[in-house]
Amino acid sequence: MTAVIITIGDELLIGQIINTNQAYIAERLNTVGVDCRRMLTVGDNAADVLAAFEEGLRTAEVVCVTGGLGPTHDDITKRMVCEFFGTDLVMHEPTLEHIKVLATRRNIAMLQSNIDQALVPRTCTVIPNPVGTAPGMLFEKDGRYFFVMPGVPYEMKEMVDHWILPFLEQRNNGMVVRHRTLKTTGIGESMLANEIGPVEQIIGTDGSITLAFLPNPMGTKLRLTVKDPSAASAQQKLEAAEAALRARTERYIYSDDEKELEDVIGLLLTQRKATLSVAESCTGGLLANRITNVPGSSAYFLGGFIAYHNDVKMKELGVPASVLEQHGAVSKETAEAMAIGARTALGTDVALSVTGIAGPSGGTPEKPVGLCFIGYADADSSFAMKFNFGDNRKRFKDRATQAALELLRRKLLKMN
Amino acid sequence: MTAVIITIGDELLIGQIINTNQAYIAERLNTVGVDCRRMLTVGDNAADVLAAFEEGLRTAEVVCVTGGLGPTHDDITKRMVCEFFGTDLVMHEPTLEHIKVLATRRNIAMLQSNIDQALVPRTCTVIPNPVGTAPGMLFEKDGRYFFVMPGVPYEMKEMVDHWILPFLEQRNNGMVVRHRTLKTTGIGESMLANEIGPVEQIIGTDGSITLAFLPNPMGTKLRLTVKDPSAASAQQKLEAAEAALRARTERYIYSDDEKELEDVIGLLLTQRKATLSVAESCTGGLLANRITNVPGSSAYFLGGFIAYHNDVKMKELGVPASVLEQHGAVSKETAEAMAIGARTALGTDVALSVTGIAGPSGGTPEKPVGLCFIGYADADSSFAMKFNFGDNRKRFKDRATQAALELLRRKLLKMN
Repeated sequence: MTAVIITIGDELLIGQIINTNQAYIAERLNTVGVDCRRMLTVGDNAADVLAAFEEGLRTAEVVCVTGGLGPTHDDITKRMVCEFFGTDLVMHEPTLEHIKVLATRRNIAMLQSNIDQALVPRTCTVIPNPVGTAPGMLFEKDGRYFFVMPGVPYEMKEMVDHWILPFLEQRNNGMVVRHRTLKTTGIGESMLANEIGPVEQIIGTDGSITLAFLPNPMGTKLRLTVKDPSAASAQQKLEAAEAALRARTERYIYSDDEKELEDVIGLLLTQRKATLSVAESCTGGLLANRITNVPGSSAYFLGGFIAYHNDVKMKELGVPASVLEQHGAVSKETAEAMAIGARTALGTDVALSVTGIAGPSGGTPEKPVGLCFIGYADADSSFAMKFNFGDNRKRFKDRATQAALELLRRKLLKMN
Repeated sequence: MTAVIITIGDELLIGQIINTNQAYIAERLNTVGVDCRRMLTVGDNAADVLAAFEEGLRTAEVVCVTGGLGPTHDDITKRMVCEFFGTDLVMHEPTLEHIKVLATRRNIAMLQSNIDQALVPRTCTVIPNPVGTAPGMLFEKDGRYFFVMPGVPYEMKEMVDHWILPFLEQRNNGMVVRHRTLKTTGIGESMLANEIGPVEQIIGTDGSITLAFLPNPMGTKLRLTVKDPSAASAQQKLEAAEAALRARTERYIYSDDEKELEDVIGLLLTQRKATLSVAESCTGGLLANRITNVPGSSAYFLGGFIAYHNDVKMKELGVPASVLEQHGAVSKETAEAMAIGARTALGTDVALSVTGIAGPSGGTPEKPVGLCFIGYADADSSFAMKFNFGDNRKRFKDRATQAALELLRRKLLKMN
C-alpha cells in the first residue's frame, strides 16, 4: 500500500517548529509495509486544507493527517473533514466520559471548549486518545483509509503505534512485515559492509528480506525487513537473517532495540554491582551528561572531574607534571593517568577518561584537531587508546563520548 | 510574495531523516516577507518530481527545491529540471574551476562524476556554491522564481542566506522587511507579556510592525518584523519598536542575535579576564558541556566537578557532613557550599553549582521532583537560589543549566 502524509499548521509554514511528525509516521508506516509517496504541509486555512485532502485521497490508499484538532479557533481540521466527507458533528459519549475523567484527574474545570472536543463527524470511526482529549478519526472511502490525528507528538504516536499500525497490518494484502534493528558502533559503514560480506548470504535472493544500512555520527544501524504472507515464516526468516548478521558483526552490536549506549552501560554496571567515575578534558562534561541522562544512574555513577586546565589534571587527578611536560596534555600517558586519578580519587571500580583537541584551534602537525585519547582504569589494569574524531567541535564531542562508552562496554563484557 | 518549498529524497519518505531544510528555508524566506504556502516532499523518481515542480510553479511566485543534486545515479533533480524547463546541460567553466580547486585543496582525484557536477541547464542562472561542488540554479518564468539547491544543509543555507534572500529582497514589490529578535530567559511567556503591556504602545496600530512571541524550554524569543516601502523608514520604525520593547524587558534579554547564553557568558568572562569553575550534581555535566561548546572556552573555564554522590560533595568540594545531614543534598546550604568548594579547589574568580532532583524518582512531598538550587560564589560573596524545573529529566537539565548561566550573566553585569 502507498500513503500520503498531510501535516497542518501555520507554525510549520513559518519554520517555527521542525516537522518531526511526518518522519515518525513515515517510518512507522514503513514497518507494516506501507510506503509513503508524498508529504504535504499546509496552513490553517480552509482552501489549502481541502485541496490537500483531495490530493491525498487521489494519490494514495492511505492518508494520514495531523494537526489542527485543538480547542482554539484556528484549529479547523474537524470542520474541514466534515465538509470534505459531507457529514456533520455528533456528540461521542465515550469520548466525553474520557474527557471528564481526565479533567477530574488533572483537577481542571470542564469548559465548553473541552466538551466540544467530544464532537466527532457522524460517519467516522473514532480512534481513542488515551493520553489526551482530542479523539482521532478514520474515514473509509472506496477502499481507501483516511486517518486524522492530533498534532501533539505523543498523542499522535500513541494512535499510530496502538491503533493505526495494527489496523493496517491486518489489511495489507495479507502480507506480514517484520523488522529487526541492530545498533552498531566503533566501525565505519564501509568496514561494516566488508565484515558482512555478500548480503545474499544473509538475505537470500528472493526479495522477501531487505537489509538497510542507516549511518549516523554515533554508529550505523542495520535494519532487516521481512515481508511474507505467513507470520510464522516471516518470523523464521527474520531470526535466520539476524543470526547470520550477528555471526559476522556481533562485536559491534550494542543494542537491538531503542536503548542508547549509556542505557546499555547502566544495565551492565548494575548487573556487576560496579561503580563508575570519569575524568573529562575535551568532552567538557558531555560524557558525564550522557551517563546521567539515564534515570537511576546515581546507583552506579559516583561523579567525575572536568579537567580542562592542566592544573586541574595535576591537582585533582594527580597527573604527574612530568607526564604533562614529556608527553603533553593530549597523550596516551595523560589519558591513562587521568583515568587512574579519577578512580583513585572517587574510589570507584572503573573509570573512564578523555583528552583531545576538539578544535577549531589548538592543533599542530603532530597533534591535529580531532586527535583524542580515551583512558580506562579498573582494579587490575589501565590503558589508553588513540582516535581521531574530525574537526567539527560538537560532533567531535559526540563521537568521543560514544567511543568512550563503547570501550567501557567491551571491557565490561570482557571482549578485548 | 508566496512560496512553495519542495524537498526531494527517498530518505525523507522513509522517515530516516527529519526534514530540517524546509523549516530553515521557510523561516528565512519569512524574514524578507515571502510567505510559505505549502511544503511538499517527494521521492527520487521522475513522475513525482515533475508533478511537484508543476504544482509548485502553479501555486506560488517563488519555488525552492532542495535535494537530488549529488553525483550518484539516484540524484535526478538536474535531469528533471532540464526536462521541465525544456533545456539541456552545458558545461559551466567557473563551476568546473571551482570544483578543481576544491579537489586540489582536499587532495582528492577528479572523477568523471565530479566533472559532471559542473554541467548546468543552459537557461538557468547559476547560484555559486562556495562550500561544496553542486551548483544551485535559478529559473525565471512568467515573473516567477524557481530556485534549485543541494540538500546538504550547510550548502543550502549558504545559498539561501547569501544569494537567494538578497535576490528576493530586491524584488519583493518594493517592500523592505526588517527583523530584530531579542532572546529572553528567566521569565515565563505570560509574565513577559505582562511586563510588556499593551503591544500597541510598541508596534503601533497601522499593521506595519508585528511582534511574535516564540517560546521554547530555554526562554522566549521576541521577534519584531517591520514591512515598509522605504528602507530608512523601516529601520527607524524597527529601532523605535526595539527601544520601546527593551525599556520594558531589558533585564531578561541576553542576546539580540544568534548567540547562545554560553557564548554571551564567554564574552563577559573574557572582557573581565575572569575564570570560571562549576560543581554539578543533578545536571551531571551538562552545564560544563554547554560552557565548553564555545570555541576558545579553555581561556576562561578551568574545569569542574560532577558531584553526583554525597561522598564526592564532601571529599572534593568540602561540603561539611553537617550541612548534608541537617539540610540534605538538595538544599540552599549545600548548593552554596558546592560553589564555594569548586571556587576554592580550582582557584577561579567565580564558580557556579547546581543540585536538585531531576527525577523521575527521588522526590518527596517536601522536596518534589523538579526542585533545584543554583549556587554562586566569587571573592566577595556567595549565595544560592531556589527553582523548580518540572518532571521531565532532560528538560530539567536544559532549564537548570540555562538558569545557572543566566544567574552568572546577571552577576557579571551587576544586575542584582
